[in-house]
Amino acid sequence: MARSLPDLQAVVSEIAAEMKARPDRGKVADYIPDLARADASAFGMAVITGDGEVALGGDAETPFSIQSISKVFTLTLALGMAGDRLWNRVGREPSGSAFNSIVQLESERGIPRNPFINAGAIAVTDLILSGHQPREALGEILRFMQFLADDGSIKIDKAVAASEKRTGFRNVALANYMKSFGIIENPVENTLGVYFHHCAIAMSCRQLAMAGRFLAHSGINPATGHRVIQAQRARRINAVMLTCGHYDGSGEFAYRVGLPGKSGVGGGILAVIPGTASIAVWSPGLDDSGNSHLGRIALEALTRRLGASIFGD
Amino acid sequence: MARSLPDLQAVVSEIAAEMKARPDRGKVADYIPDLARADASAFGMAVITGDGEVALGGDAETPFSIQSISKVFTLTLALGMAGDRLWNRVGREPSGSAFNSIVQLESERGIPRNPFINAGAIAVTDLILSGHQPREALGEILRFMQFLADDGSIKIDKAVAASEKRTGFRNVALANYMKSFGIIENPVENTLGVYFHHCAIAMSCRQLAMAGRFLAHSGINPATGHRVIQAQRARRINAVMLTCGHYDGSGEFAYRVGLPGKSGVGGGILAVIPGTASIAVWSPGLDDSGNSHLGRIALEALTRRLGASIFGD
Amino acid sequence: MARSLPDLQAVVSEIAAEMKARPDRGKVADYIPDLARADASAFGMAVITGDGEVALGGDAETPFSIQSISKVFTLTLALGMAGDRLWNRVGREPSGSAFNSIVQLESERGIPRNPFINAGAIAVTDLILSGHQPREALGEILRFMQFLADDGSIKIDKAVAASEKRTGFRNVALANYMKSFGIIENPVENTLGVYFHHCAIAMSCRQLAMAGRFLAHSGINPATGHRVIQAQRARRINAVMLTCGHYDGSGEFAYRVGLPGKSGVGGGILAVIPGTASIAVWSPGLDDSGNSHLGRIALEALTRRLGASIFGD
Amino acid sequence: MARSLPDLQAVVSEIAAEMKARPDRGKVADYIPDLARADASAFGMAVITGDGEVALGGDAETPFSIQSISKVFTLTLALGMAGDRLWNRVGREPSGSAFNSIVQLESERGIPRNPFINAGAIAVTDLILSGHQPREALGEILRFMQFLADDGSIKIDKAVAASEKRTGFRNVALANYMKSFGIIENPVENTLGVYFHHCAIAMSCRQLAMAGRFLAHSGINPATGHRVIQAQRARRINAVMLTCGHYDGSGEFAYRVGLPGKSGVGGGILAVIPGTASIAVWSPGLDDSGNSHLGRIALEALTRRLGASIFGD
Repeated sequence: MARSLPDLQAVVSEIAAEMKARPDRGKVADYIPDLARADASAFGMAVITGDGEVALGGDAETPFSIQSISKVFTLTLALGMAGDRLWNRVGREPSGSAFNSIVQLESERGIPRNPFINAGAIAVTDLILSGHQPREALGEILRFMQFLADDGSIKIDKAVAASEKRTGFRNVALANYMKSFGIIENPVENTLGVYFHHCAIAMSCRQLAMAGRFLAHSGINPATGHRVIQAQRARRINAVMLTCGHYDGSGEFAYRVGLPGKSGVGGGILAVIPGTASIAVWSPGLDDSGNSHLGRIALEALTRRLGASIFGD
Repeated sequence: MARSLPDLQAVVSEIAAEMKARPDRGKVADYIPDLARADASAFGMAVITGDGEVALGGDAETPFSIQSISKVFTLTLALGMAGDRLWNRVGREPSGSAFNSIVQLESERGIPRNPFINAGAIAVTDLILSGHQPREALGEILRFMQFLADDGSIKIDKAVAASEKRTGFRNVALANYMKSFGIIENPVENTLGVYFHHCAIAMSCRQLAMAGRFLAHSGINPATGHRVIQAQRARRINAVMLTCGHYDGSGEFAYRVGLPGKSGVGGGILAVIPGTASIAVWSPGLDDSGNSHLGRIALEALTRRLGASIFGD
Repeated sequence: MARSLPDLQAVVSEIAAEMKARPDRGKVADYIPDLARADASAFGMAVITGDGEVALGGDAETPFSIQSISKVFTLTLALGMAGDRLWNRVGREPSGSAFNSIVQLESERGIPRNPFINAGAIAVTDLILSGHQPREALGEILRFMQFLADDGSIKIDKAVAASEKRTGFRNVALANYMKSFGIIENPVENTLGVYFHHCAIAMSCRQLAMAGRFLAHSGINPATGHRVIQAQRARRINAVMLTCGHYDGSGEFAYRVGLPGKSGVGGGILAVIPGTASIAVWSPGLDDSGNSHLGRIALEALTRRLGASIFGD
Repeated sequence: MARSLPDLQAVVSEIAAEMKARPDRGKVADYIPDLARADASAFGMAVITGDGEVALGGDAETPFSIQSISKVFTLTLALGMAGDRLWNRVGREPSGSAFNSIVQLESERGIPRNPFINAGAIAVTDLILSGHQPREALGEILRFMQFLADDGSIKIDKAVAASEKRTGFRNVALANYMKSFGIIENPVENTLGVYFHHCAIAMSCRQLAMAGRFLAHSGINPATGHRVIQAQRARRINAVMLTCGHYDGSGEFAYRVGLPGKSGVGGGILAVIPGTASIAVWSPGLDDSGNSHLGRIALEALTRRLGASIFGD
């Protein structure tokens, strides 16, 4: 069900200007040095509709570390490979706790609550890895991103990946903990190697919005008509994004923005208006839940001005 | 954004017939005797569109105990009375645990995660009660339900209310626990008295779908044009229903059904297709998460046949 | 195995003088007004040996609210009434959490970890109450205390009891929570009425040390030779005091003091040197774990000067 | 304060015979193959008094994997090296949960509750390792054991160590989790390498009771008069053994046995009668808390027959 979005470029430009001017910018993630270097004054936005209109605002062409946003794409890839068997290893309920919490794993025998908390995404990566070398699996993920965005220039930022590997002790803990319950099948270092690298993919808002089009259009790339996944699966990934896409701020995002979306600690958010548009925003400063502070505010403004909430006009 | 729903009555009749015939019926709640007496073979469904079409199937006119579905209406009423001040006393994040869990209250200083778990709904009831006698507050809630459904015959089942009061030790625990943190302001027995009674309101699917129309239509009763609440608030209540409306099965409901909804242990579910229709289903047997087993399956069938998921076609 | 304790009075006087002079006094419990009024400068100590020597220091004759120390005596009484059947309703493991935590009850189906956390003591009180009126049960507890201390003047401070009742919402929550699992058999208000009152018993250090003699002497009152409980039970109560007697500071107390003991938020501590002496100290200021700050320091000094640790010379 | 223990050898022989004959033997740990091979019919006991009497029963000369009992000795060594600074990295409170639980680490910022749960023992090993190569640190631990037991033949079972390393994912998780909070300073693989190896030390009951003598005798080896640690530290290690030495069965052990002790999943228990004797028992079958089933029963019998409980005659 497509909507017309009159003056889309005007709305996007206006929001980008407003965001650039705001003094409140959140706090840049500093747990790895390569993310800490991000420019807190940056803001970018890209909206791409089903009929190919592209509206860009601010730093929409600047690449940033997509981090957890990559989990949407690895979930898509893993569902294509393993089908609903995937749900034996990972749940699809909100977690009610922080993104890197280990508590829930103990009480639920190593099965992560959903594919968008770190533990769940590591389990999904493990599934993609099955029977492959890390290098091959990573190549497959990267090529999938390039294909979706129709852009062969998308790369992994190896400095970020190396930095994550050096400091990601909590992810090593999560992976080994799941391994102790048999949820991880490959050697932990292989699974984590792939995980750290796909989180370190660098993309601009424009590239990310391009890559997310299939989620807004029932699993189909609207430019080519090519089906990426079944329509039902696209809807369901959107549902998981809505309930679990923003860590322990998922309820807040649904309440304020009213769109399915997935955030990353690099400050990016991918969101979709089902049937209408794919959206990416980026601003490195985070709120208390680890989601982009201005990214969320910009999306709230966009949904309001476009009347695009999935929860009603 | 209204959709046309061709053959709505045919679809509803078909689904009702299918549900009546299924052998798997879930498990009727037995924690209070008056609920345990419910007929496991019952199934009802009502869909009411914005232009007044009413499609009924199965036992759509049989009253049942709405239980936690009442929480949607007390939240609406409390937001009207207290405005966003309400959110100081209750959060809006999924809980990641069972509906009557007390664990989360301890780690979050007595503030319930959302208004749809028991603790949160008790806190909302306490807000409605402020400065009133229990009898007055309860009268106000009941009249609000009658007004929304345009039906003065809606009643409280006093036997159910009395039964809850006799056996509801865990709710007494939750309320006193919150009281120890200052989240409950009225005497606990008054707040719980009102809470037990509004959970014991009895309604049919038709009455419930009538009462839920304002949520599907931007806060307006489509039959009269009367505004019940602001459009933004209606959207936001829908968002909270989607992320928190089905206890620890909320993710599953979003994934399978793709509509905002709220369930009760009496076996009812209220759901909305934003811009299009208000829906109520009822079947007393529950699944492991405490949600109506056939109710969820029926809604999944309905959304699929109507192409009505909020997450895409 | 009795030790000789040379110069006991001199040691006790010296410690009392040192404690009186210290500037660090902890923080008086303020959760109920009647406890908050306690004099932070107070310090008392009483040591009573098996051959009847009584050494008093400081405010050893001033009555204070014994609070949780009463739990040692209700446990003794309940074991006499119900025998080891008691352990079906309450465990005997340290809790690893605060004295009024409700979290553990949820994961262990309503069974409190030990009889010295609030939930456990309420369950023990419920067992004493079985088949009696609250007034009778309370009378029995009070007479037991008077009998053990050989002092008919011991009383309940009704203002404290009433104050607890007015403000003890968390205890009401704990009791109702256990009731929901069937661990509490009597009406909750009866059980809590008795509980609040036995916690409000007022005793001096001298009276308390008198009452505790049977624990130091294998279950026998050394003055009369009268057996209060079996020797094995006395040893086992001492063991539970050592592992669980100081809430989440039990390990610290064992580490520093090296004696079985039980504290109360009124600032009292009862401790025993097995085979040798019964000890009571009192100073109202508490440490972060809710135990008497100077009481613990005084006992540490006493054990060191007497070489009385149960863990070695 | 030394006791005389008449007929010690007779008591030990009698208990060994009784234990050999019992049909209930617990369940041999099977999480690593090399432990699973242990003979469930084995039972050994050794009691060594301060004046050098050695009473042996059953398989007292058969070496077994001491596993967590090694934690008592690494704690002793680390206290000697780092002093009370050690307590900045590890607490001394009972944990209230299973030996390999990770939950508590999350809520307490990576600081393990006590040195006898796995996380705490790993943190202690990390402290011993500081500034050394793993091989050197391990050599130091082994030589310390040989020195205490006066027996140069004590060895590490390398097959067990290798087996732990291959399967110890949960310990890898614990160590990395602590590392993420800065509690572990060395590379995780080095710390764990030393940890897995000291847990794999093989000793007989006689050797273990020899090694534990200093804990029973105020920090002094009674055979040589040589001081191993200060008297206060010996008492305090005994206190930590009593409150935390048997995982989530510590309260039960204190209640039934009444001696400070430390168990290992290899089925061994080291216990001390302060001032009197060092004791080791071994039987591979474990109870639900992971402690030697017959080992605990044998110690309960021994304490009763000798009247040796620290909690009274």
